[in-house]
Amino acid sequence: MVFQKRYHPPGTAPGTLAGAAVEAGALNISLINYTSDHIEEVQKASIGDCRMSLDRPDKTWIHVTGRPDPKLMTDLGQFFGLHPLALEDVLNAGQRPKADVYEGQLFVVLSEMRQTPDGLQAVQVSFFQGENFVISIQEDGAEDLFEPIRKRLRQAGSRLRSKDADYLLYALIDLVVDRKYPMLERIGERIEQLDDELLERPSRSSVGQIHGLKRDLLVIRRFCWPEREVIGWLLRDEASLIGREARTYLRDCYDHSVQIIDLLETYREMVSMQMEVYLSAISHRLNEIIRVLTVISTIFIPLTFITSLYGMNFEFMPELRSRWGYPAVLLVMASLAVLMVLWFWRRGWLRRS
Amino acid sequence: MVFQKRYHPPGTAPGTLAGAAVEAGALNISLINYTSDHIEEVQKASIGDCRMSLDRPDKTWIHVTGRPDPKLMTDLGQFFGLHPLALEDVLNAGQRPKADVYEGQLFVVLSEMRQTPDGLQAVQVSFFQGENFVISIQEDGAEDLFEPIRKRLRQAGSRLRSKDADYLLYALIDLVVDRKYPMLERIGERIEQLDDELLERPSRSSVGQIHGLKRDLLVIRRFCWPEREVIGWLLRDEASLIGREARTYLRDCYDHSVQIIDLLETYREMVSMQMEVYLSAISHRLNEIIRVLTVISTIFIPLTFITSLYGMNFEFMPELRSRWGYPAVLLVMASLAVLMVLWFWRRGWLRRS
Amino acid sequence: MVFQKRYHPPGTAPGTLAGAAVEAGALNISLINYTSDHIEEVQKASIGDCRMSLDRPDKTWIHVTGRPDPKLMTDLGQFFGLHPLALEDVLNAGQRPKADVYEGQLFVVLSEMRQTPDGLQAVQVSFFQGENFVISIQEDGAEDLFEPIRKRLRQAGSRLRSKDADYLLYALIDLVVDRKYPMLERIGERIEQLDDELLERPSRSSVGQIHGLKRDLLVIRRFCWPEREVIGWLLRDEASLIGREARTYLRDCYDHSVQIIDLLETYREMVSMQMEVYLSAISHRLNEIIRVLTVISTIFIPLTFITSLYGMNFEFMPELRSRWGYPAVLLVMASLAVLMVLWFWRRGWLRRS
Amino acid sequence: MVFQKRYHPPGTAPGTLAGAAVEAGALNISLINYTSDHIEEVQKASIGDCRMSLDRPDKTWIHVTGRPDPKLMTDLGQFFGLHPLALEDVLNAGQRPKADVYEGQLFVVLSEMRQTPDGLQAVQVSFFQGENFVISIQEDGAEDLFEPIRKRLRQAGSRLRSKDADYLLYALIDLVVDRKYPMLERIGERIEQLDDELLERPSRSSVGQIHGLKRDLLVIRRFCWPEREVIGWLLRDEASLIGREARTYLRDCYDHSVQIIDLLETYREMVSMQMEVYLSAISHRLNEIIRVLTVISTIFIPLTFITSLYGMNFEFMPELRSRWGYPAVLLVMASLAVLMVLWFWRRGWLRRS
Amino acid sequence: MVFQKRYHPPGTAPGTLAGAAVEAGALNISLINYTSDHIEEVQKASIGDCRMSLDRPDKTWIHVTGRPDPKLMTDLGQFFGLHPLALEDVLNAGQRPKADVYEGQLFVVLSEMRQTPDGLQAVQVSFFQGENFVISIQEDGAEDLFEPIRKRLRQAGSRLRSKDADYLLYALIDLVVDRKYPMLERIGERIEQLDDELLERPSRSSVGQIHGLKRDLLVIRRFCWPEREVIGWLLRDEASLIGREARTYLRDCYDHSVQIIDLLETYREMVSMQMEVYLSAISHRLNEIIRVLTVISTIFIPLTFITSLYGMNFEFMPELRSRWGYPAVLLVMASLAVLMVLWFWRRGWLRRS
Repeated sequence: MVFQKRYHPPGTAPGTLAGAAVEAGALNISLINYTSDHIEEVQKASIGDCRMSLDRPDKTWIHVTGRPDPKLMTDLGQFFGLHPLALEDVLNAGQRPKADVYEGQLFVVLSEMRQTPDGLQAVQVSFFQGENFVISIQEDGAEDLFEPIRKRLRQAGSRLRSKDADYLLYALIDLVVDRKYPMLERIGERIEQLDDELLERPSRSSVGQIHGLKRDLLVIRRFCWPEREVIGWLLRDEASLIGREARTYLRDCYDHSVQIIDLLETYREMVSMQMEVYLSAISHRLNEIIRVLTVISTIFIPLTFITSLYGMNFEFMPELRSRWGYPAVLLVMASLAVLMVLWFWRRGWLRRS
Repeated sequence: MVFQKRYHPPGTAPGTLAGAAVEAGALNISLINYTSDHIEEVQKASIGDCRMSLDRPDKTWIHVTGRPDPKLMTDLGQFFGLHPLALEDVLNAGQRPKADVYEGQLFVVLSEMRQTPDGLQAVQVSFFQGENFVISIQEDGAEDLFEPIRKRLRQAGSRLRSKDADYLLYALIDLVVDRKYPMLERIGERIEQLDDELLERPSRSSVGQIHGLKRDLLVIRRFCWPEREVIGWLLRDEASLIGREARTYLRDCYDHSVQIIDLLETYREMVSMQMEVYLSAISHRLNEIIRVLTVISTIFIPLTFITSLYGMNFEFMPELRSRWGYPAVLLVMASLAVLMVLWFWRRGWLRRS
Repeated sequence: MVFQKRYHPPGTAPGTLAGAAVEAGALNISLINYTSDHIEEVQKASIGDCRMSLDRPDKTWIHVTGRPDPKLMTDLGQFFGLHPLALEDVLNAGQRPKADVYEGQLFVVLSEMRQTPDGLQAVQVSFFQGENFVISIQEDGAEDLFEPIRKRLRQAGSRLRSKDADYLLYALIDLVVDRKYPMLERIGERIEQLDDELLERPSRSSVGQIHGLKRDLLVIRRFCWPEREVIGWLLRDEASLIGREARTYLRDCYDHSVQIIDLLETYREMVSMQMEVYLSAISHRLNEIIRVLTVISTIFIPLTFITSLYGMNFEFMPELRSRWGYPAVLLVMASLAVLMVLWFWRRGWLRRS
Repeated sequence: MVFQKRYHPPGTAPGTLAGAAVEAGALNISLINYTSDHIEEVQKASIGDCRMSLDRPDKTWIHVTGRPDPKLMTDLGQFFGLHPLALEDVLNAGQRPKADVYEGQLFVVLSEMRQTPDGLQAVQVSFFQGENFVISIQEDGAEDLFEPIRKRLRQAGSRLRSKDADYLLYALIDLVVDRKYPMLERIGERIEQLDDELLERPSRSSVGQIHGLKRDLLVIRRFCWPEREVIGWLLRDEASLIGREARTYLRDCYDHSVQIIDLLETYREMVSMQMEVYLSAISHRLNEIIRVLTVISTIFIPLTFITSLYGMNFEFMPELRSRWGYPAVLLVMASLAVLMVLWFWRRGWLRRS
Repeated sequence: MVFQKRYHPPGTAPGTLAGAAVEAGALNISLINYTSDHIEEVQKASIGDCRMSLDRPDKTWIHVTGRPDPKLMTDLGQFFGLHPLALEDVLNAGQRPKADVYEGQLFVVLSEMRQTPDGLQAVQVSFFQGENFVISIQEDGAEDLFEPIRKRLRQAGSRLRSKDADYLLYALIDLVVDRKYPMLERIGERIEQLDDELLERPSRSSVGQIHGLKRDLLVIRRFCWPEREVIGWLLRDEASLIGREARTYLRDCYDHSVQIIDLLETYREMVSMQMEVYLSAISHRLNEIIRVLTVISTIFIPLTFITSLYGMNFEFMPELRSRWGYPAVLLVMASLAVLMVLWFWRRGWLRRS
């Protein structure tokens, strides 16, 4: 499915939070309150738990997995003062990666890639960052992306614990970006396998594979280019709410996103090349097949003509009566065949090219 | 029809408002006067009704559906102080989307896509925004684009009612932009269907479909790129008459127009890919056909040569007399055939590739 | 002819006005002196007439059709203080569209397209604008481009009469730009005709037509892109000598030149597409032809083998003696033929694809 | 030879002036001292002559043809205070066109194209401009590029004589740029000839020609794009040492370099088009050849089957006995042939497409 | 292997220095302390030696060959105050070339190309530059890149000795950049050989070679473009820590990196061209093969029909009885063959095209 965006009917008022009904049980909220000294985790938090953490002085990270329902988003929006346009973007998943600042709060949309039977699909990951909270929403509930961050948070003395919310946001973004590396590594392997296959034994199924690779690269590309823009904007823009120290780290993350795009574009060129190699292989094989046909036909058609010449039933054909007619014709035909073979040999049609 | 622009003979004075005659009854003016407290609608308004709303303190929205005649535009122009160059652009439909400010009034041209038997066609939608009025002109009368906005306006307490004219303009622009989503969704479905067809049973008609898709994408693209520019200009330019608050919403609309272009470019690449897949499928099928020909010919041509050899009428052919001649020849031919088949098998020509 | 530029031998001093000899009678000077109150026209003016209008207070428009000779340009240059480099550019036609300011005078080069048997050719149109004069030079004498402007000038009370020389210059430039519309409309029609032809009955001559279209588009493109730059420069640059009011109109003209380029690029993509469609049509037809060959050969070659088997002259072939030999062989061959046909039918080779 | 750059072993100290040994007699120095009043020329000047002109108040132009040896460059460098990095660039010919300012001296590298049996090759032309001298070095000695400038210098009262060294530099650069015109004109002619050939009688040698053209255009392009940059930099940059007056002229030269690039890119597109036309011509010819084969085979294969049917030696074939057997079979075969021909006619396979 | 980047599992804390275990003995540290007066070299330095040179007033250059282990980098980082993110980049080799400033220290990553059986591979070369030290780390130990620099350092009075650390850094960067010249020269030779092969005797192996060339160019390109950016940044940015004098030299190095990219892009176009030439050669050869088949078939199929006509066993075939039947048929067949040959000759099918 190429078109992945959920959208309201055109003309709906902006900020309308009416999404499709959510499958029961698909949603999970994980709530963490932490300072450098202590950490409190609630695994399956209720919206009320989130509400309460507002009044506490420590830093709060709320992570929602699974597609959120409008009710939840409205509540979160009210408690944390999130902008309706941003909430709408969370519900209408399939957004282009973007970053916006709404009244002192940072809103960031990124995307994670999932392998499906139809090829890669993007899963939206959204972030809100305020004074001392981060809310992250991952559109599907298949796998909790941020478990490694949670592990680091649990370690007393880790840098994550002592820094502000912007550093937590950086860590989350960094993880989403870095998850593209193993994905690209897998694609690189598919390309190399296909390369070998194409140069050795190209087959009809290769086209499907090339097509699938191109499609996947198009999908990744559609999300990675704006991702780079988003991180570049966070890094450079005055308004971006990311502190000086977190920016130093974000610069590293930006380098990664640039490198990912470099790789993507290299891959795209390699896959284009593969289509050319496939087409040239088909053409080459056609040549081989037709060469066989031509060699066989060209040798036997004149010979068959000769034999059928002497198969004519004319009464007065002196050769037929001759004692040496048959051997002579055999000799002629043999010579002709040898000449033909020599001629083909000289033209290189008998060697495999 | 690719060339869609109406134009005056070169050398005509600028601002000349002489268009083609308009078909009777095609034109409809809908007039709405509203404040946050009340709303008045006139469905089939006359030009006089429009004139009168000028003197009223409330906000006015005039929507014209169907291609306007020069007379109407001249009158509107005089009443509301619209610039002749802008009026000319409305009459000479087929404009590139654009935004201009003429003496304190904003003039915006966007486009709506219509499905016709010849493929997609653009329909021009023009907007004038002044102090407290918005005039919108939709070039064809097929379907009133802005009915959803009208519904929202009728709801007491809706944000549209309480805000200024620039917010109404934003809402209209937003609707025109968002209408590209369902259109692109339909095109995405066409692409996927064609993908399946191409990988399973490519046929001559596929070329026509690929061609049609490419053509439609070219048409959309020609209007969507400048549309993005227009909205970007409205968003950023000092002169654009859009207030700070409406800009927050317009930014969302801009994101949509960027995403639409992303999708378009992805689609374009997918359609290019489809042409390649089609060509490779044709080549592959050619290979298959010729392989059948070659296999059959290569097996039977030598055999036929042998049979016609013994069809010769020479008197002295000892084999013909031999009791074992016939079975021996049959054996030779059978062995030859088996050898050939084995050779083809080993080369993989008997398997479907 | 792709290379159209006239040039001096490299190393010639800049500003040298030595052109080729001009064919007698090819040159015509039309001189108009006008204010908002009166207008004076001289159809076949001499260089002396031009000289005299210098001393008059009213506005002067000198239009030269046909390739000017160096003598004339030198004289005009002296009288009106034109810069030698600009004069050289007028004589060495085939310039890239450009705009320059030389000591308070504006020099603009645009181009007009002419249909010739070898395809489209560019004709250079040059303009000088000073305090109260405009000199326009049209490289060929085939058709006076500016007759519509002259008509408007003759109308008392026309805007052209009351405005300054910069507005006249705008009007001339606008006309040159707008003349691209009918030309592009014609090309659009050629493209659509060719589209129909390619999808229905592609022939060898289609390649020539596609080639011709591509070539024409390349020629137009080479002149339209810099034309847009020129008008953009006139519009934006401080130095451009175009007044504030004329700029409002020129902005409209700029929009046109942008739209022309949009169309051009769309056309170029459509023509590329046509080449692909043509190539796929050829490939498809090849498939059809070879399918016929393969079907016929594959059915008859084995049958012929059987017949020629029983055409052998062995003395001991028991089948030949049998009463049922002939009918049995006929039956076998018929069955074989039917089986073959069924096999081809199942593979879809008997249907037109 | 694509890779043309001479370079030191990586890691050599910058400014090292060790070049290859120079063939004796290949080098020629021409020295001109001039003011507006007088001119002195030395045809085969020694390095001592150059040294002496340093002390004179008049302007000096030293022109070196042939690849200079390190000794000469070191001496020139010492006398005129040239920077070692610039001297290294002169010796390591094959530089990208560039312009640099070293301590009040301007250093410019341009390139001239030479036709060789392997296609076009670039010849480096370097310039140093100081207070009142210009040194120009032309990498090969085949033809003195600047003879036309020398002629203009000899004319008393020529603009060259009265202006400063920067005007002389301009004149030299202008000549190098303008020499691309005749070269492009020749390439344009090659393209047109090839166009005609491709549409009328494409042959195997056309590929070689297209390949040669593309290669030449790549070589020119590699040097013309940076040449435009260099001239643009000289024109615009504060640091460029070119006076206000020479800049007016240089602007003209810049226009030429832009036009040259326009032409180049147009040529490149035309040559790409030619490859497509060639490929479509080959495909078309293949169709024609195979159509002949198919028509002949399809008509005669069934007929031959019939004849060989009645060539079978069964004893009981009633038709063979019949008086009308032979004429009947002839009639059947004739009808079949006619039907086949009609069928082919209707499908358009007998007309040349 | 296209994907070359080493990376931590996503979500690892930034600055983590845990790399793979390093093969024993692969690592070598070479330490040089120098001033303009003296130089001290330690060939196989320990980390302790490095530590000691910190306290000395002279300039220090530490060069590490072979992939460093985390322990070594941690130590170096502590002694010289290197930033953990930079150290991580050194360990996670396969970085995109980049330059960063961390607290007064410059960190630069470049790359060197190595020929491997799988094509070119990039080897990361990293540099740290502080007040009076340079640390360079070359990812593999195959060949010490910087031996030429060491030779220059050993020469008393060399510029390297007297200048600051930034000049040493420049010299190292310059060497890494210049090493691309011989590599590109070798690729240029491969392209030219392949060119000749393709125009004379294209074979199946050509595709593999074209593919290999394209792949190598993609790899180089992926590293050379950012390398140019890095050097451009060092040259222009305020923060880059490169002094004014070293910048003069670095500008030369920048010119080289630009020229390398020019060459790369030219090569890429040439290799694309080669694929086209190969495809056209295959098509052409197919034409030749099929022409032979068609000529032979078209001449002999009708003749064989005639012979098999008179091989029919009808009792009443008057021609068979005629004395002149046989000679007449021979004559007819000979004429037919001659006519066919003439017809083919006229169509040019007997000449090699």
